[in-house]
Amino acid sequence: MNVIYPLKGIIPPLVTPLSDTDRLDVAGVEKLIEHVIAGGVHGLYILGTTGESPSLSHRLKKELIARTCRLVKRRIPVLVGVSDSSFAESIELSEIAAMEGATAVVITPSFYFLQGQSELLEYLQHIVPRMPLPVFYYNIPIYTKVALEPATAVQMAEIRQIVGIKDSSSNLAYFKQVQYLLKHRTDFSFLLGTEEYLGEFVLTGGHGGIPCGANLFPRLFVDLYHAAVNRDIDKIRALQDKIMYISTTIYSTGLHPSSFLKGLKGTLSLLGICSDAMAEPFTPFRAAERDKLKTFLQQLKVV
Amino acid sequence: MNVIYPLKGIIPPLVTPLSDTDRLDVAGVEKLIEHVIAGGVHGLYILGTTGESPSLSHRLKKELIARTCRLVKRRIPVLVGVSDSSFAESIELSEIAAMEGATAVVITPSFYFLQGQSELLEYLQHIVPRMPLPVFYYNIPIYTKVALEPATAVQMAEIRQIVGIKDSSSNLAYFKQVQYLLKHRTDFSFLLGTEEYLGEFVLTGGHGGIPCGANLFPRLFVDLYHAAVNRDIDKIRALQDKIMYISTTIYSTGLHPSSFLKGLKGTLSLLGICSDAMAEPFTPFRAAERDKLKTFLQQLKVV
Amino acid sequence: MNVIYPLKGIIPPLVTPLSDTDRLDVAGVEKLIEHVIAGGVHGLYILGTTGESPSLSHRLKKELIARTCRLVKRRIPVLVGVSDSSFAESIELSEIAAMEGATAVVITPSFYFLQGQSELLEYLQHIVPRMPLPVFYYNIPIYTKVALEPATAVQMAEIRQIVGIKDSSSNLAYFKQVQYLLKHRTDFSFLLGTEEYLGEFVLTGGHGGIPCGANLFPRLFVDLYHAAVNRDIDKIRALQDKIMYISTTIYSTGLHPSSFLKGLKGTLSLLGICSDAMAEPFTPFRAAERDKLKTFLQQLKVV
Amino acid sequence: MNVIYPLKGIIPPLVTPLSDTDRLDVAGVEKLIEHVIAGGVHGLYILGTTGESPSLSHRLKKELIARTCRLVKRRIPVLVGVSDSSFAESIELSEIAAMEGATAVVITPSFYFLQGQSELLEYLQHIVPRMPLPVFYYNIPIYTKVALEPATAVQMAEIRQIVGIKDSSSNLAYFKQVQYLLKHRTDFSFLLGTEEYLGEFVLTGGHGGIPCGANLFPRLFVDLYHAAVNRDIDKIRALQDKIMYISTTIYSTGLHPSSFLKGLKGTLSLLGICSDAMAEPFTPFRAAERDKLKTFLQQLKVV
Repeated sequence: MNVIYPLKGIIPPLVTPLSDTDRLDVAGVEKLIEHVIAGGVHGLYILGTTGESPSLSHRLKKELIARTCRLVKRRIPVLVGVSDSSFAESIELSEIAAMEGATAVVITPSFYFLQGQSELLEYLQHIVPRMPLPVFYYNIPIYTKVALEPATAVQMAEIRQIVGIKDSSSNLAYFKQVQYLLKHRTDFSFLLGTEEYLGEFVLTGGHGGIPCGANLFPRLFVDLYHAAVNRDIDKIRALQDKIMYISTTIYSTGLHPSSFLKGLKGTLSLLGICSDAMAEPFTPFRAAERDKLKTFLQQLKVV
Repeated sequence: MNVIYPLKGIIPPLVTPLSDTDRLDVAGVEKLIEHVIAGGVHGLYILGTTGESPSLSHRLKKELIARTCRLVKRRIPVLVGVSDSSFAESIELSEIAAMEGATAVVITPSFYFLQGQSELLEYLQHIVPRMPLPVFYYNIPIYTKVALEPATAVQMAEIRQIVGIKDSSSNLAYFKQVQYLLKHRTDFSFLLGTEEYLGEFVLTGGHGGIPCGANLFPRLFVDLYHAAVNRDIDKIRALQDKIMYISTTIYSTGLHPSSFLKGLKGTLSLLGICSDAMAEPFTPFRAAERDKLKTFLQQLKVV
Repeated sequence: MNVIYPLKGIIPPLVTPLSDTDRLDVAGVEKLIEHVIAGGVHGLYILGTTGESPSLSHRLKKELIARTCRLVKRRIPVLVGVSDSSFAESIELSEIAAMEGATAVVITPSFYFLQGQSELLEYLQHIVPRMPLPVFYYNIPIYTKVALEPATAVQMAEIRQIVGIKDSSSNLAYFKQVQYLLKHRTDFSFLLGTEEYLGEFVLTGGHGGIPCGANLFPRLFVDLYHAAVNRDIDKIRALQDKIMYISTTIYSTGLHPSSFLKGLKGTLSLLGICSDAMAEPFTPFRAAERDKLKTFLQQLKVV
Repeated sequence: MNVIYPLKGIIPPLVTPLSDTDRLDVAGVEKLIEHVIAGGVHGLYILGTTGESPSLSHRLKKELIARTCRLVKRRIPVLVGVSDSSFAESIELSEIAAMEGATAVVITPSFYFLQGQSELLEYLQHIVPRMPLPVFYYNIPIYTKVALEPATAVQMAEIRQIVGIKDSSSNLAYFKQVQYLLKHRTDFSFLLGTEEYLGEFVLTGGHGGIPCGANLFPRLFVDLYHAAVNRDIDKIRALQDKIMYISTTIYSTGLHPSSFLKGLKGTLSLLGICSDAMAEPFTPFRAAERDKLKTFLQQLKVV
């Protein structure tokens, strides 16, 4: 597989199918991978936020990396999340990813302590060269508590091993500022973690997205990507409307910020793709919420 | 003047030209109004965040409402910000706005106390009917500390006197959710307070924007709006690129969140439109920052 | 009246008795003032957060200042909150306070915009000399969004007209740092806005407090103050226990952060001191919550 | 060793002496342990925030647990932090702690995702019974992003295996509310993570503290504890004054929130107790800051 940078297209952040809080749903992993590849996705990303990575044991993470790489068989790029609150654990995960044949790794800041911008920059300057693969930076301040400021992004981009950013800040003004300031890095990918405006983002120069909804409906997102590349605005609007339906129903079913994840896994289980088991601190939706998800799925057909 | 809802287009949030911390720069007000009208804007909005409204005395606010309405002479709609921490003061401002012939008023939540969603909704149910004009809701949680949640927006939209939302949350996913949930309100305007993705927003169904940069370069934003209505993607990208230049230079010159405002007023003064005097708690940029603004302005011509 | 600095003791932040959202409950104002003076308080503070100041019209604020000063007749010091998002309005309020014979004024930062520390310091350097009375600084970052950092407090204390701080940050480590750094200002009052640890605070060097519960039970807080001055630890513990009861019942009855205020006014009305009417954006508790307050009051007698 | 609940006294949260970002400074561990035991502390706590636990590799954590327990030889209780973003890893650490002879474990919420209160409660209900030791709950919302609300604390306290709370919220009003609501749990320890008001806290009913400064000056904190137990207010004030000096100098030397940790390790190295090496994402202070620490240490003698 010849990976061309900037990496482009739809790269689903896979959920981690579990049969138990600390056991992989092996059949689910395979089904899910084949489901998204059949949908035409341009890569896949395991062990991200959607993959509940911080909640998983190291043993299970290693198993998932190995199984995924072997199942994908280099048909598409595999990105592996290696974020950890511990520097040493992140490096070890990146080495396993390299050994198993992954394409690149994805890191956030170390996510317990509060870091100043200079500390974040130094952290990246220290950790990236220790990793044996290209690195994507993952900006998700709601969980990591530190946002990569535009000026820091400029300094970070001097590390040539960093080949892109996934932005889940929900702040498009911010992400466009970073993209504008880094336009000299022509090999650098700007990938969006927020699916509600993915079409618009690609239409005006974004490279693609890492939308969690592509676990459920990979073809929908691949079609959206192509519509954006082809500047088919009517199609973009129609597809984004479906995504807004998903966003305001499936992801908004429960009370807590974990809703999107519970809705995602619950719906995947209704679709017969994998179990809705979750790693602690979360638990699957109960019957009432599952019933809502069923109704949403039925209505989605006619949206 | 026959105002058609949903209100559409470019509606600059005017700065308040001051000759002193508590005195209107009367000549500046006139110049600024003629400058933006000459630029083809579709309305104007006074006494918003960009207008430093919370920093102004009641006396000065009243004077500005009166002067603006008389200068505009109904050539374009005039929206008047009437937010105040006090309910009674907001109502009084709305009455003055109506008396002077303004088109509509704009309100935020009362901005000192923390309000729950049910308290915010009740507040709107109480205050809106007391106002003699159509009302736009202004969502700017960074300053008001309360975000209008999508479910609350749905309930709010049952108040028919509310005819639109200006969103300055910087969260396009959120704003598209609200727009999706309110699509039955066909007279309702969705206006964007964030100019960095205004083209994309209009291209996929937004009604327009309230971009502070339109104080400086109204024609740029009017052109952007028309390019979006005409689906001219190359033009959108070229114009948004200029806006990204402005955003990453003029608005990013100082250290504090007030930078955008100081940069805006400083640049208006360099352009000869009005003084850069500010109301406390802010003060104009000093020489070093003003020199930077000069350089940015010169470079902007060749961007 | 000869006011000695540092000001010490119990200074209740009076609620503003209202008969309507924008009308003073004149009888209530008098009853409340006599109630707290009878309880032995060392001063009183009107137009603070507890006084719903930001929600009140300018007209009503002026009326309250005048009435309060005339009712108190210099028996005890009167502090007047003059915070406003507008510099000019704050100065005007301070002039009215001086004219009516108030002792000092209390200010927060301008509370809409976000201010950096240097902006906050400049604001104070500009506004304080314009005020005709001694000034207390009020630190309440939950509402103003800006915390006075210890290093800024040191610079602020060079303004000799500032004679104290009221801290409602709930962060005693912070307040003790500020007190430690300002120990050279021997005329400077450290007054606590949080009543749950007021006894401890006075015991180890604090000057007093501005506890909202002193509206209800002024004698309880005055006794606590004297117990602390006299180092009577058993008494402090017994009285703080009553305060903990109030804090975990009366102030914790509703769902929203406004609970303490609704509980306070509801209980004052049950005690026959003033109406429970509130200024928007808040409304009084409904019957269910009022019934809870009744039960809490009854149980308080046996706590 | 017979551990009596509620656990009381001074329990230093030990730094983790490192010779490298991922290597234990074995001699430093021993010196530090003997240093605090010689200072009279009532227990010690490893692998907390001060111990940089989230930054350490699993291998190193296990080594530290084993070495610490063997060095302490049951002279005093050993508390072991077992927080992790992963449930499974936390349980494994608790099993190792039990096997090595630790006294109890300390947990925070899983610290990447945002958890609602009901999710936090369920998490505790699931994880605590899986742990083979008594459990302390550690409230530190600045890092974990979730605060244990008083009502949730009441429900949590029904889990009898939980034997105490360490509070590092810096909010004494909150902690006293929790203590008031849990007074029926007579075996439950209330331990303070904030040293600036530790004397006051013990004086009015707190059980003790987990002050990071006790790494440096264990005797100072032990003396403070005894002064509080003996109600010696002059001594409390004198000792807290020293602590305020440390807090406003050693902990406040750098720019970022990591200052307290860099100041602590830098000072320990100046005292010859252990190296100042830190685990990523942090690095030791550079020469300029180290020189400041030296000066502070010299002045401390005369404070």
